[in-house]
Amino acid sequence: MPPPPSPSAASPTAALLVIGNEILSGRTRDEHIPYFGKQLNAWGLRLSEVRVVPDEEEQIVAAVNACRTVYAYVFTTGGIGPTHDDITAAAIARAFDRPLVQNSEAVAILEAHYGPERLNAARLRMAAMPPGAELIPNPVSKAPGFQMENVFVLPGPPLVLQAMVEGLRNRLVGGPPIVTRAVSAELAEGTIASGLADIQARHAMLEIGSYPYFREGKLGVNVVLRGTETGALAEAIADVTQLLEGLGGAPAEERLD
Amino acid sequence: MPPPPSPSAASPTAALLVIGNEILSGRTRDEHIPYFGKQLNAWGLRLSEVRVVPDEEEQIVAAVNACRTVYAYVFTTGGIGPTHDDITAAAIARAFDRPLVQNSEAVAILEAHYGPERLNAARLRMAAMPPGAELIPNPVSKAPGFQMENVFVLPGPPLVLQAMVEGLRNRLVGGPPIVTRAVSAELAEGTIASGLADIQARHAMLEIGSYPYFREGKLGVNVVLRGTETGALAEAIADVTQLLEGLGGAPAEERLD
Repeated sequence: MPPPPSPSAASPTAALLVIGNEILSGRTRDEHIPYFGKQLNAWGLRLSEVRVVPDEEEQIVAAVNACRTVYAYVFTTGGIGPTHDDITAAAIARAFDRPLVQNSEAVAILEAHYGPERLNAARLRMAAMPPGAELIPNPVSKAPGFQMENVFVLPGPPLVLQAMVEGLRNRLVGGPPIVTRAVSAELAEGTIASGLADIQARHAMLEIGSYPYFREGKLGVNVVLRGTETGALAEAIADVTQLLEGLGGAPAEERLD
Repeated sequence: MPPPPSPSAASPTAALLVIGNEILSGRTRDEHIPYFGKQLNAWGLRLSEVRVVPDEEEQIVAAVNACRTVYAYVFTTGGIGPTHDDITAAAIARAFDRPLVQNSEAVAILEAHYGPERLNAARLRMAAMPPGAELIPNPVSKAPGFQMENVFVLPGPPLVLQAMVEGLRNRLVGGPPIVTRAVSAELAEGTIASGLADIQARHAMLEIGSYPYFREGKLGVNVVLRGTETGALAEAIADVTQLLEGLGGAPAEERLD
């Protein structure tokens, strides 16, 4: 059976590259994937792939180069602080085959923030970027991120990152917002599968997913519909509701942001 | 500056491939990455990369083939249920250049569980696997996963997946457990960076990471140390504690599981 068509084949794509041993070790729970998923949907961009890689230059370079040639935008998170494990800027420079140089605009921001006596060599490393980097302002802790072509280099702490991403709206060209709606019922997936496949076939521009759940000892299913065309979404929601009712479920729509 | 050496260069590696639009859309928060990170550490395996891809065959095939040739083990999650969006088994078969056939052992499990009248065509799809697949028993909801060479194909719901992974212990060959310890202090990263780099240089077989935090209005840093050699870990913890004390911090060790 062929895969269902993409809900947003026309939407520009994006990849997220989460850089950090702390995610891979299980110590820190990722907060970037759900944030980018929702934020990009709202801006009409489709998050098409995420990679989580360790703080190792070879792996970062390979992932950046694999993603920047395939997706419209790439966002990296983590590894741009002042400590020895912050190697993202060097990896980005290598991925673009450029040297790593002091960005004078970034140096000026750090000088203004730290003052001459606190701006030590470690903190100055945060101004090292490839030539041509365009700064991404950091309204929280000042040390900027940077953009190289379609790659946006951002820090790891979620609150800092999110404040910086909000400022990127005008640099990103999206399509219509990608909207998600969901209907649930206490029915088994195997019961609804055939009818749901028919509905997917009739609404090829939507992405329809089925997710089983166990809640308070009861088995149920969430049917999730995504797409950019709100008319088609409303029709498909009605179709799914009718299917679930016909199979003896009591479908409830859950409206999502 | 070269990247720090891997803490566990000798540990067998693993990749996790999370398959599911629901993660990329931001609707569902991933629970697999922290689970695998911790579980694999305990078994002496190093989670070296995670990819999250949509329910699209091309992307699944490409990710499986990229990872299974590089890492000792690959775990996939999601896409093995009965609905139209469950395409993982077909993608795995294609990645291995094999056909998709009914696995008779899986059919027998499904027959026993559902009985003849509830085992419809949709549910029978859950027995379709490439020839040579070895089943992974599912103690929760019965429909099995499967192993093809070094690739372990698992379902999406976390409770079901975790029960199945626990049964895999004897199929995986790990090294010594990878242990994580952490020390925190209310100091800025830029203040500790130089001393911390020296400690990393002296303990090349450990992975030492620095993670800033803002808590109750105060800036601080978590220094996280990982490795398989508990003696070296204890020495490095003492070094980091001395560094942080010397810089006026009040270091506190956080013992992690």
